[in-house]
Amino acid sequence: MTEQTSLPGAAARIPIAELESGQAVAGAYACSEKTTATDRNGKAYLRLKLRDASGEVAAIHFDPSDEALGISTGDVVVVGGTYSVHPQYGAQVQVRRLRPAEPDEYDAGDLVPVSPVGTAELAERLHALIDSVDEPHLRTLLERAFDGSREPGATLAVAPAAVRNHHAYRHGLLEHSLIVAETAAGVASRFDSVDRDIVVAGGLLHDIGKTQAYTSGGMAPQMTDVGRLHGEIVMGHDMVRDLIDEVPDFPAEVALRLRHVIVAHHGMREKGSPVVPQTREAVIVHYCDDMTARIAAIDDAQKSTPAGENWSGRIFMIDAPAYFGPRDDSADE
Amino acid sequence: MTEQTSLPGAAARIPIAELESGQAVAGAYACSEKTTATDRNGKAYLRLKLRDASGEVAAIHFDPSDEALGISTGDVVVVGGTYSVHPQYGAQVQVRRLRPAEPDEYDAGDLVPVSPVGTAELAERLHALIDSVDEPHLRTLLERAFDGSREPGATLAVAPAAVRNHHAYRHGLLEHSLIVAETAAGVASRFDSVDRDIVVAGGLLHDIGKTQAYTSGGMAPQMTDVGRLHGEIVMGHDMVRDLIDEVPDFPAEVALRLRHVIVAHHGMREKGSPVVPQTREAVIVHYCDDMTARIAAIDDAQKSTPAGENWSGRIFMIDAPAYFGPRDDSADE
Amino acid sequence: MTEQTSLPGAAARIPIAELESGQAVAGAYACSEKTTATDRNGKAYLRLKLRDASGEVAAIHFDPSDEALGISTGDVVVVGGTYSVHPQYGAQVQVRRLRPAEPDEYDAGDLVPVSPVGTAELAERLHALIDSVDEPHLRTLLERAFDGSREPGATLAVAPAAVRNHHAYRHGLLEHSLIVAETAAGVASRFDSVDRDIVVAGGLLHDIGKTQAYTSGGMAPQMTDVGRLHGEIVMGHDMVRDLIDEVPDFPAEVALRLRHVIVAHHGMREKGSPVVPQTREAVIVHYCDDMTARIAAIDDAQKSTPAGENWSGRIFMIDAPAYFGPRDDSADE
Amino acid sequence: MTEQTSLPGAAARIPIAELESGQAVAGAYACSEKTTATDRNGKAYLRLKLRDASGEVAAIHFDPSDEALGISTGDVVVVGGTYSVHPQYGAQVQVRRLRPAEPDEYDAGDLVPVSPVGTAELAERLHALIDSVDEPHLRTLLERAFDGSREPGATLAVAPAAVRNHHAYRHGLLEHSLIVAETAAGVASRFDSVDRDIVVAGGLLHDIGKTQAYTSGGMAPQMTDVGRLHGEIVMGHDMVRDLIDEVPDFPAEVALRLRHVIVAHHGMREKGSPVVPQTREAVIVHYCDDMTARIAAIDDAQKSTPAGENWSGRIFMIDAPAYFGPRDDSADE
Amino acid sequence: MTEQTSLPGAAARIPIAELESGQAVAGAYACSEKTTATDRNGKAYLRLKLRDASGEVAAIHFDPSDEALGISTGDVVVVGGTYSVHPQYGAQVQVRRLRPAEPDEYDAGDLVPVSPVGTAELAERLHALIDSVDEPHLRTLLERAFDGSREPGATLAVAPAAVRNHHAYRHGLLEHSLIVAETAAGVASRFDSVDRDIVVAGGLLHDIGKTQAYTSGGMAPQMTDVGRLHGEIVMGHDMVRDLIDEVPDFPAEVALRLRHVIVAHHGMREKGSPVVPQTREAVIVHYCDDMTARIAAIDDAQKSTPAGENWSGRIFMIDAPAYFGPRDDSADE
Amino acid sequence: MTEQTSLPGAAARIPIAELESGQAVAGAYACSEKTTATDRNGKAYLRLKLRDASGEVAAIHFDPSDEALGISTGDVVVVGGTYSVHPQYGAQVQVRRLRPAEPDEYDAGDLVPVSPVGTAELAERLHALIDSVDEPHLRTLLERAFDGSREPGATLAVAPAAVRNHHAYRHGLLEHSLIVAETAAGVASRFDSVDRDIVVAGGLLHDIGKTQAYTSGGMAPQMTDVGRLHGEIVMGHDMVRDLIDEVPDFPAEVALRLRHVIVAHHGMREKGSPVVPQTREAVIVHYCDDMTARIAAIDDAQKSTPAGENWSGRIFMIDAPAYFGPRDDSADE
Repeated sequence: MTEQTSLPGAAARIPIAELESGQAVAGAYACSEKTTATDRNGKAYLRLKLRDASGEVAAIHFDPSDEALGISTGDVVVVGGTYSVHPQYGAQVQVRRLRPAEPDEYDAGDLVPVSPVGTAELAERLHALIDSVDEPHLRTLLERAFDGSREPGATLAVAPAAVRNHHAYRHGLLEHSLIVAETAAGVASRFDSVDRDIVVAGGLLHDIGKTQAYTSGGMAPQMTDVGRLHGEIVMGHDMVRDLIDEVPDFPAEVALRLRHVIVAHHGMREKGSPVVPQTREAVIVHYCDDMTARIAAIDDAQKSTPAGENWSGRIFMIDAPAYFGPRDDSADE
Repeated sequence: MTEQTSLPGAAARIPIAELESGQAVAGAYACSEKTTATDRNGKAYLRLKLRDASGEVAAIHFDPSDEALGISTGDVVVVGGTYSVHPQYGAQVQVRRLRPAEPDEYDAGDLVPVSPVGTAELAERLHALIDSVDEPHLRTLLERAFDGSREPGATLAVAPAAVRNHHAYRHGLLEHSLIVAETAAGVASRFDSVDRDIVVAGGLLHDIGKTQAYTSGGMAPQMTDVGRLHGEIVMGHDMVRDLIDEVPDFPAEVALRLRHVIVAHHGMREKGSPVVPQTREAVIVHYCDDMTARIAAIDDAQKSTPAGENWSGRIFMIDAPAYFGPRDDSADE
Repeated sequence: MTEQTSLPGAAARIPIAELESGQAVAGAYACSEKTTATDRNGKAYLRLKLRDASGEVAAIHFDPSDEALGISTGDVVVVGGTYSVHPQYGAQVQVRRLRPAEPDEYDAGDLVPVSPVGTAELAERLHALIDSVDEPHLRTLLERAFDGSREPGATLAVAPAAVRNHHAYRHGLLEHSLIVAETAAGVASRFDSVDRDIVVAGGLLHDIGKTQAYTSGGMAPQMTDVGRLHGEIVMGHDMVRDLIDEVPDFPAEVALRLRHVIVAHHGMREKGSPVVPQTREAVIVHYCDDMTARIAAIDDAQKSTPAGENWSGRIFMIDAPAYFGPRDDSADE
Repeated sequence: MTEQTSLPGAAARIPIAELESGQAVAGAYACSEKTTATDRNGKAYLRLKLRDASGEVAAIHFDPSDEALGISTGDVVVVGGTYSVHPQYGAQVQVRRLRPAEPDEYDAGDLVPVSPVGTAELAERLHALIDSVDEPHLRTLLERAFDGSREPGATLAVAPAAVRNHHAYRHGLLEHSLIVAETAAGVASRFDSVDRDIVVAGGLLHDIGKTQAYTSGGMAPQMTDVGRLHGEIVMGHDMVRDLIDEVPDFPAEVALRLRHVIVAHHGMREKGSPVVPQTREAVIVHYCDDMTARIAAIDDAQKSTPAGENWSGRIFMIDAPAYFGPRDDSADE
Repeated sequence: MTEQTSLPGAAARIPIAELESGQAVAGAYACSEKTTATDRNGKAYLRLKLRDASGEVAAIHFDPSDEALGISTGDVVVVGGTYSVHPQYGAQVQVRRLRPAEPDEYDAGDLVPVSPVGTAELAERLHALIDSVDEPHLRTLLERAFDGSREPGATLAVAPAAVRNHHAYRHGLLEHSLIVAETAAGVASRFDSVDRDIVVAGGLLHDIGKTQAYTSGGMAPQMTDVGRLHGEIVMGHDMVRDLIDEVPDFPAEVALRLRHVIVAHHGMREKGSPVVPQTREAVIVHYCDDMTARIAAIDDAQKSTPAGENWSGRIFMIDAPAYFGPRDDSADE
Repeated sequence: MTEQTSLPGAAARIPIAELESGQAVAGAYACSEKTTATDRNGKAYLRLKLRDASGEVAAIHFDPSDEALGISTGDVVVVGGTYSVHPQYGAQVQVRRLRPAEPDEYDAGDLVPVSPVGTAELAERLHALIDSVDEPHLRTLLERAFDGSREPGATLAVAPAAVRNHHAYRHGLLEHSLIVAETAAGVASRFDSVDRDIVVAGGLLHDIGKTQAYTSGGMAPQMTDVGRLHGEIVMGHDMVRDLIDEVPDFPAEVALRLRHVIVAHHGMREKGSPVVPQTREAVIVHYCDDMTARIAAIDDAQKSTPAGENWSGRIFMIDAPAYFGPRDDSADE
């Protein structure tokens, strides 16, 4: 068992997407699912899913150590084993050794998918938006909200937008919030009657509740207890109040309108918003959120649709498959 | 115009329910509806509804003074005029003089319907419930919430439970909260697995958001801006947090569960709860809220159903008329 | 009866919004509603609604001539009578003489509300959009579709977008189509994966079926028989095919995608689209249609909300009243 | 084959929950599912589920005798074989011999799960409730309905409340009916306007239709033909009429109200009640039925949730998982 | 008051549809609506609707006698007064004298609309259908059900099919049941797998519950207490059981299937059927019921649509107006 | 590889329903599903479903030739291999050789299920219906629509009515259209107000859009791109216009009504009809379509229900299982 301590570090690891049948597996991976089962002799073994930035693979681990038995979904683990592809049951890693990874044994950036947009570009677009806000209290509030040296900014900068569906990768929440705010600002600029500042702030903050409604420390985000029991919309309303309380003399009318955008952004009660959008600003943020999430979901689906196929599989968010057609496909290459 | 200042005070007023056709009207009434219209000569006149604890009546006021034109729905006004019943258009007060009432010209208790249960009994039942709570932080929180010398206790003590439907009278919110908490506590006591303290606290506080979602100063409660834009459920969640912050070392787990009861008490998203009840305590408070509100709505409907009728008119809350039958009627008398 | 022929022409007419109680009414108005009733002596009389660009008013006409009895909703009529405001029943024109107007007796622009945006600006924006389309067949198709010297362009240029709700005025359909196409093009430009040409063409043509689904000759648009029996979506699909057939070698793939945008633009079956949006372009046009229509409906509601009111009445399209707040109001003035 | 007749009796049987991998299985079990399949040689074999009071296990039986082939779901069978746990496919009994059990070979109490509440306590609570009914005809009706020496009382005493979801065990229907009636009586006692007798009788009888809508003789209840084709609500209405016909001079008004409680107890048409609750008594029984069934479903879910887990899996009846939290768990141990 | 007893009998009455403004009204009419109001002097007066086979008219009666005050909706009354048409408020009878009619003072056939199909033809078609049933028990059951010398046959022969919507006239239920049964029998004959006897019996009896769910004695059918509280579907199920009990050796399988047709004939839970159609026979009766009711509703609407109109008003049953078109209209004349 | 070319022709093939475990498989089958997978060595292999008129079976093909890898769902393939039944995984063909079939190697009639009604009978019933149409333009239109020597008649004659659910076999669309038209004509004949010609034409053509919405050349119909993106209802509307354009002087009113029947035949927006039926003819075709499809679905379900079973499995179209009962079963044999 001393052999286990000599497990190779993350340096030697092969990305999951590049594993070939028969190849040895060695290095740090995120454990995205863990089930403990019992074999015919009553001995516990583990069924796992391992994930890194390139993909996910099933794994099985017989004769686990107590240390291995104690890991949780979301932990990073150092694994030794073999990858193989069974014609009937698909790809699987036979794990021989497994233990929790030390913080210095992996680079989180290798283990979770990241936004295809670079962090520098994201930061630049974020600051351009914040700087475009005229109302000074609102601009201050946004600067604090996205201050990466503290919460919620630290989490806002790295969280995924969703566990699945769209932008389900590191920085995804920031990327999604930016595209919503940018699109909404574009719409706002066409209507004199719309308060562009509220639209930009609402677009950037609409999903802020997700930073507490989902776990962010581990590698596989899960809903938190409070996320399930209070709901991400109510938590966003709560968090924006904390931010408002930090800004001296924040105007009550702006607070009233901004928090309405948060509370109403799902558009209807059936989708979890206790009130419907009742201001132009809330209408715009709601529609731009829904619209851009659907486009992103179609973009994602196209990536996992084999070349030459005109249609994706069914996409949950549009309740249908998406059509790409021959032209789109050629445009991609 | 000096004549107007000699209007008789509230002492002389006749309750609306006792007015007879042709009788003079003089005294303070609550203005529960106000519309400004224009006559054929372009002169403004007022269509009003006047209310007191005994009922409501339509009114019309030609040649209003500027003071009269400036009143708002919810104000108490001193009125002089005549009551008559038109065979085609029903009962109406022809108002000749009207001005805002001074605070010492009326007794609020005369102007809004009050709970049929006396305030002493309400207070006694409230304290019995609070005293029955074992968890000390929760008991402290309830004592502060219902402290009548400050908010929200001052408003909780007098607000109606609803603008219409059920308990739509002074002290109605307290009466409703008590019957929900008492009924829920009764149910809780039959299940070992239920945390009775959370049930009692959740029952007493489930509608606390209404104290800010509705105006309470005036005589005719209206939804406030924040009530419409954020929703009473979200506001209740917000207010309970303030109360929790006041109690040192309030246990996080109790806070998590208590606020879940508030957020989930409408039972489903379509009815305005962003999350469904996911604890036994939230299930019980939700059902006891719905059940007792429906019984109260039927009780109310019976009061306005003429003797001898077996059926009420259609009741919004049960989506049907209620059946009383011959036996119920005799039981009532 | 010869007196009737000496009715003053349109020149002398007073806009409805400027009529004062007791004033004589003389000139051409659109008849937007007509009901024939019978008086106590069995004699027919007419209840009408008269409309011009400034507003609408109820009218009653006793002792109508046969010519008057024969008019239809949507006709322009020359009217003589008196305007008065009854305190109980509101404003009404007592019509003494009424006959169909000759085409040279009125200017349609006086009788129906027009877009607040000038026709020159509308034309300029339209051409800018069409010129921005790269795909040559699609650009040709749009040029023909909006050729004002023939159908459907002639009707597209002047039709209202809806009988009520939003853009319910002359040129309203064009104004609505432009704002949808412009907004959608703005969104499209943020996504590399979106075909901007299809988005612009789909945005401009999405409501083309309305030109045949509603009457356009008269002053008060009504659904046509085919509009009711086949539906505006199906008719739009049909009309776009006619336009495609006019353009030689129109690419089948572009035709497939463009007609999908038309068919799917209501977003779901329950709203009348037999298929849901399955391309990014259809998603964008659908959301920009819904979003801008809601903003326009709130803008319209604000116009008819008295100064000083924070809230509009309930708006059908957002299923709620809209909140303007103190700040918006000051911004308006 | 003679060996088969020497199968050990029920005495030797090991409860399913206590079987260990490799252990011999011998004795009587209920067959809760039976499918006949064909092997590669065209020979029939059986896939089964075997159940007793402690649990359920899959089984497979090759080379079945004709007698074995002829058994039905719900029969009790005497089985000989071996229990094993496959790491991939889970636990299974390899059956070598199987035949229908004789009535004296098993004790039904060993084969189906029973109410955790003892029959003596159930009987005592039932009689206390019946004795508390003042209206003599109603009390007589209840005595007859629950007379265990005849139908429907004999079945009412032993039937499960449901095939799954809650109280899905022997005596479950009685236990469920008692808790509904007791809870409802508790609520009724808080409202002067409620007829407690109807509430108690309605609570006890609301599910009486299930005694004919489900099979009760066998070990695995199934819906009967009439249960599927007429519905348990309509059958309950029918059965209560039979009981009413047995009681001389049963008051028509009481019959009208009691049967309404039965017909309306699902609360709305979508859930199978052709009319909604229109009396206070029907409102109370409906809500107490729904509320206590949900609490029971959460209690059941907690039993099958591993210690240390804060959440159950998704519970059908509450359309969500249930939260137990750290405190509940400690309370259980 | 003796003058009142000299009221002219039914012989002199003028049908409502033929009354002219200013004409005296004298004779027996059905009272289809009655409201008691109070005038400015506190004196009671009556607002009424009077109906006969030709139509309905509003009426007002000041200074009513005690006898007049005591009438109920559905009573036949002998009326003296004057008919007039007010330009603003429409047609109305000013009643001067009113008393309940004696049975020999009117012919029910004059007072309620009757089926346009003659009773002889209805009887002939009914017997042809019954005679076509092969299964002897079912044929006997139908003979008893429609035996006009007893219930439910006596009521089945004269009841309307509905208070409004379709076949809302005397004999309407029989006419509706016949067309459903005939149409359904026609469909059944095209499918070998369908039991035509069940279809015919189910078609004839599907609405039998209406004979007890609606009052039938008076002139204006109303839902009965039991109709509201148990529902017409459940009552039909109950009544068919009574009929089955009368036929010796009625086959259980036929009873099971026939009652299923009754219970399921509304097609889905949302429309009041606790179970959906699960046999071919129930499917056919459900669809033929819905289909022929819609055709009848369109036929009715065409009768009340002025000649020359292509469209009816909105028809509740088809959730739309119906289109007749120019051709249909010419076909009618 | 030369061996592959010597594959036996279709003559030697055994129908799928008659294959026995261990038997050799040789001949032409339709490929109704094809998935390419990769084995542990990275080599591609095929998972297939093979179908003929008698049934369907799973197949697996390792070491496929390039020719085999290139086949598509819907192709006919010549297969060599072995059929076996695994106790755990069911029946499967182990394919050793596979190539596309030449047109002369199979008879399409052997490979797809066909209507149980003979083509001669179908043709006779079709012509009887067409000949019964009085309106000459409509009769001409139907003759052209069903002209088997061109489109759409050629496809109409052979297409299935659906991929699954009902009439999912060759000629199924024609058989379904005939039964709808015949049933609808029978209903029409009972109502003087109904235009039987429109009903017959609408019944025959209601599903014409399916001939372009589904592929028809191959053996396994799939939705086409245009079928998914425009919808079969809109395509039917489009195709009927083409047919109308072929008939000189086709009356506009008849065209208006006929196309309404097509557009409205799904009955409501939620089911894909952008308008609801607004003419009697559209009501009748809609109901007869739904009703006969449900009966056909029950008939189909009975065929796959084992003898002796009283109930089918759940049927999608009726949202329930169907009851056949003991009597139906005996009637079948």
